Amino acid sequence: MDKVDYLKVFREIVAEMDGADDCGEVATYIPELANVDPNKLGMHLTTVSNDNYSLGDSDEKFSIQSIAKVWSLTLVLKILGKETWKRLGVEPSGNAFNSLVQLEYEKGIPRNPFINAGAIVICDMLVSLLEVPKVDLLNFIRKSSGIESIDYSPGIAESEIQTGHRNYALANLMKDFGNIHNDIGTVLDLYFNLCSIELTCKELAQAFLFLASKGVNPFNNETVISPRRTKRINSIMLMCGFYDEAGEFAFRTGLPGKSGVGGGIVAIHPGEFCIAVFSPKLNKRGNSYKGMKVLEGVTTKTNSSIF
Amino acid sequence: MDKVDYLKVFREIVAEMDGADDCGEVATYIPELANVDPNKLGMHLTTVSNDNYSLGDSDEKFSIQSIAKVWSLTLVLKILGKETWKRLGVEPSGNAFNSLVQLEYEKGIPRNPFINAGAIVICDMLVSLLEVPKVDLLNFIRKSSGIESIDYSPGIAESEIQTGHRNYALANLMKDFGNIHNDIGTVLDLYFNLCSIELTCKELAQAFLFLASKGVNPFNNETVISPRRTKRINSIMLMCGFYDEAGEFAFRTGLPGKSGVGGGIVAIHPGEFCIAVFSPKLNKRGNSYKGMKVLEGVTTKTNSSIF
Amino acid sequence: MDKVDYLKVFREIVAEMDGADDCGEVATYIPELANVDPNKLGMHLTTVSNDNYSLGDSDEKFSIQSIAKVWSLTLVLKILGKETWKRLGVEPSGNAFNSLVQLEYEKGIPRNPFINAGAIVICDMLVSLLEVPKVDLLNFIRKSSGIESIDYSPGIAESEIQTGHRNYALANLMKDFGNIHNDIGTVLDLYFNLCSIELTCKELAQAFLFLASKGVNPFNNETVISPRRTKRINSIMLMCGFYDEAGEFAFRTGLPGKSGVGGGIVAIHPGEFCIAVFSPKLNKRGNSYKGMKVLEGVTTKTNSSIF
Amino acid sequence: MDKVDYLKVFREIVAEMDGADDCGEVATYIPELANVDPNKLGMHLTTVSNDNYSLGDSDEKFSIQSIAKVWSLTLVLKILGKETWKRLGVEPSGNAFNSLVQLEYEKGIPRNPFINAGAIVICDMLVSLLEVPKVDLLNFIRKSSGIESIDYSPGIAESEIQTGHRNYALANLMKDFGNIHNDIGTVLDLYFNLCSIELTCKELAQAFLFLASKGVNPFNNETVISPRRTKRINSIMLMCGFYDEAGEFAFRTGLPGKSGVGGGIVAIHPGEFCIAVFSPKLNKRGNSYKGMKVLEGVTTKTNSSIF
Repeated sequence: MDKVDYLKVFREIVAEMDGADDCGEVATYIPELANVDPNKLGMHLTTVSNDNYSLGDSDEKFSIQSIAKVWSLTLVLKILGKETWKRLGVEPSGNAFNSLVQLEYEKGIPRNPFINAGAIVICDMLVSLLEVPKVDLLNFIRKSSGIESIDYSPGIAESEIQTGHRNYALANLMKDFGNIHNDIGTVLDLYFNLCSIELTCKELAQAFLFLASKGVNPFNNETVISPRRTKRINSIMLMCGFYDEAGEFAFRTGLPGKSGVGGGIVAIHPGEFCIAVFSPKLNKRGNSYKGMKVLEGVTTKTNSSIF
Repeated sequence: MDKVDYLKVFREIVAEMDGADDCGEVATYIPELANVDPNKLGMHLTTVSNDNYSLGDSDEKFSIQSIAKVWSLTLVLKILGKETWKRLGVEPSGNAFNSLVQLEYEKGIPRNPFINAGAIVICDMLVSLLEVPKVDLLNFIRKSSGIESIDYSPGIAESEIQTGHRNYALANLMKDFGNIHNDIGTVLDLYFNLCSIELTCKELAQAFLFLASKGVNPFNNETVISPRRTKRINSIMLMCGFYDEAGEFAFRTGLPGKSGVGGGIVAIHPGEFCIAVFSPKLNKRGNSYKGMKVLEGVTTKTNSSIF
Repeated sequence: MDKVDYLKVFREIVAEMDGADDCGEVATYIPELANVDPNKLGMHLTTVSNDNYSLGDSDEKFSIQSIAKVWSLTLVLKILGKETWKRLGVEPSGNAFNSLVQLEYEKGIPRNPFINAGAIVICDMLVSLLEVPKVDLLNFIRKSSGIESIDYSPGIAESEIQTGHRNYALANLMKDFGNIHNDIGTVLDLYFNLCSIELTCKELAQAFLFLASKGVNPFNNETVISPRRTKRINSIMLMCGFYDEAGEFAFRTGLPGKSGVGGGIVAIHPGEFCIAVFSPKLNKRGNSYKGMKVLEGVTTKTNSSIF
Repeated sequence: MDKVDYLKVFREIVAEMDGADDCGEVATYIPELANVDPNKLGMHLTTVSNDNYSLGDSDEKFSIQSIAKVWSLTLVLKILGKETWKRLGVEPSGNAFNSLVQLEYEKGIPRNPFINAGAIVICDMLVSLLEVPKVDLLNFIRKSSGIESIDYSPGIAESEIQTGHRNYALANLMKDFGNIHNDIGTVLDLYFNLCSIELTCKELAQAFLFLASKGVNPFNNETVISPRRTKRINSIMLMCGFYDEAGEFAFRTGLPGKSGVGGGIVAIHPGEFCIAVFSPKLNKRGNSYKGMKVLEGVTTKTNSSIF
């Protein structure tokens, strides 16, 4: 197969965007997100053979938010294996409106590791499993990505703690059901720090390339996780990576991925590439409007999809 | 109308109880409730002309729990009047299962002041309104009841704080909706202290007699609240005083009342009497099994009911 | 006690209404309701000693709709007694939004006989119990009210059948749970015919006066139902008679009552009177806006309330 | 790549099954399903180059039930294209418990074409679009599969109609929201007939092979649907094909698929094969217990997965 010229693809997609695509709203619940330039648009694709394609603001750092939940899941799976699934599921969560009642009805067992409740349980597991949770998790992230400079952003984490009442509600409800084992303050401190990490599109594409290459980071040949578990993480990303829009994303793009409220999206084509896009304006479901457009464009124009 | 011999009525009711009525379970979520003697049964009725009728363990102190929410509501209504209803409703809450989703669907506005969420909002109002909330609320309770010895029970309050994760979940969810204005810890400290009060049946019947006599305490002629608001408190008690069993209680007993998870129930016959019953074994809805039986017996045998 | 001059009370209430009270919307889902003159306002109060007070359009016939459900409940209770409660409850239903999920969660057992699902179960019982259900029910209504001219309105019933998809949905869901025993078409035909009855305020006040006088119709001394069951019907009306506004009505008016989407309301003061009001504009909860105002005025001005 | 010997794989999987795998329950809600031999186990895999592998009861006919919903979706998509998505979504549905409330909350728009509500809307579209719906749909199924003998099973359809109250409830609720345009009886007759089709594993694998080969049936080179829409059907199958167990199936098997309550499952490996399995005992989520086991075994042993 000839090499695809993804840069040409990126340029076509951007050229075809018009005023109608300049919609959506930047997240405003904390100042660190509200103050982002809404017109930023960056994209970076790294293939498993380490070819790189960039366009726009691909070297601009942004808050990756929920995308970081892929790391916490990966680390817990690496340590616990299928024991992990005793305390949460792998099913899509349905719509946001019933998140609390679903958690209540299902007795404090979150549907999957990417909804907030599930990511909080994963952080609770890490608090139990790791010696110095915040340090050890950061070391894992640095080592698996090969990017030593990755760090928490204390300002963002602090803002999240101040406004994160709903996450405290979720954690307390799960504690009531016995599915949070550690102190809620400690667990949420880890959770909010994890979500505070800032990266560029280029760094993101590099950081999660192991999911496109059977669990091994092509940069330093670091084995992050086994091929079998890599597949499972990809399947969970496809089923649950886009909140209440997972079906729409699978339908239009056909790739596993994970989005964050900061406007970033990472997507994986197993065996082919990892791509990261950043554009801060979000659609109603909380996913980057232009980010979804770019990813749909890439898979349509290159006729690539897992289906 | 001749005086009713309520003591005779009490004796008949107790005589007619049999093994089949020895059912239900004592609340066990904190040791202070779990350790209560499950066989206690006390009852006390005080008429508006201060005739008193007692049977059984009517001088045994017990944790009145949610019954105390009648005081916090009374004090807020006294200060704020109908402003109170901007932040909560007067509707029955339906079943427990959807308490969280209802609160979420209704944007953090609790259905009524007797469900936990509503009582927490009432405590939040008191924290805003009172100078020294815990002291001032206690003074109001002492003055309105004419019982100077009433006090919080720090041990019970502390146990509730340790296990009250669901209440923290409710408070955080409401804070997310902007319906809790003060620090959650402070609000819940007041809430749990309020619910920690211990009284005897006799004291309870005296304390809430003002609701049977147009808002005036017959013991010291203290005007607790206006006749109009007295009616409204009674109507809220009838509609919302028994969790998910309010209809059943109205249907069988026909009196406004309020129960607590400690096994106490207070009921009001406006213009006639206030009655308190205590028996710690609870039915599935969390109301005293024998307490409900006694009250049904009283209204059936004396043919008294507001309907 | 001196006789209250309710006519004077009516006149004061109407005089005090102003432009702000001309709000709400007439029900439009069937032409028979949509075409009603929205400015009609009638009221009639009959005391247990048969004093009568009327004002406005009190001799105007209107579709009483759900108010008729009081009769079907009365007849089933008369025949079955407490067996009735094996297939439905006496609890308020909470808000409309979760009517279907509540029915599903509670396995097809409706919360009370006044929500649509409960009234349909009551009609299913009547189909099983009566020889010629439509005829026998009508005869009971005529005899209990002493009004021989009461009849179904085939045009209204037919319109309801054509648009009543949600009621068919409820009936089918309950049939799935085994709580509808007869053919759905037959049951809903009875249900829609029952709700199609048209009466004047004067007739309505007469028809339900038995609920204010211990179950005996004062006009013809017909014993409609026992005193004990009369109380229970009153308690169910208070708890469940106003859809999701039962608490508000109890709070403001303090009387058991039942409203209909045609703009009628009946309320009972046990031992005192039965009052009927008609004004077709409904508030957001589906209850007559001015009807609620009039009833609140009557109990406020005469200081009458069961509390 | 060498040819995989799927027969060997099948044999290994069956050999490794033991008593612990003999669990689950046959569907019993209609006699036609209840009377099936619970011990049947058949499987058939057809590759895109028409290699065939069979084991066990692969020539036993069984009721394919919901698997047939793939055809109705395919035909509507072929005719209407993206217009289809104005009346239903492509999102997973979350758990069964809230199916009705979700439909109500989302105003009669079903989440996807494979839950019952969605499949009923698809049938409503077909009633509008086709001249003689039952005949035309059957002709499409015959032509697209190349199997002329496929027919409805009137006995099964009739049994479903008699017991399908919940489906009538769903249809009536959607009609109330205006999302069913035709007579409910006609729509559900088409729906139940579609679900009544009986096929063998071999026929099933042949019938849906077009989904593994870009929309073209390899047997007769019939173009069933475009490659782009083929991908979309596969993505919907992956996201929504297994009721509340879609995530689990994606996680364990990694292939798009569709199950039926008769115990059949079809799964697709795009570009590779179509596989059908039949075993009537269902797990708690309503999917064939052994069927899931066989498919997980195939993808694990051959290391095939779209992830």
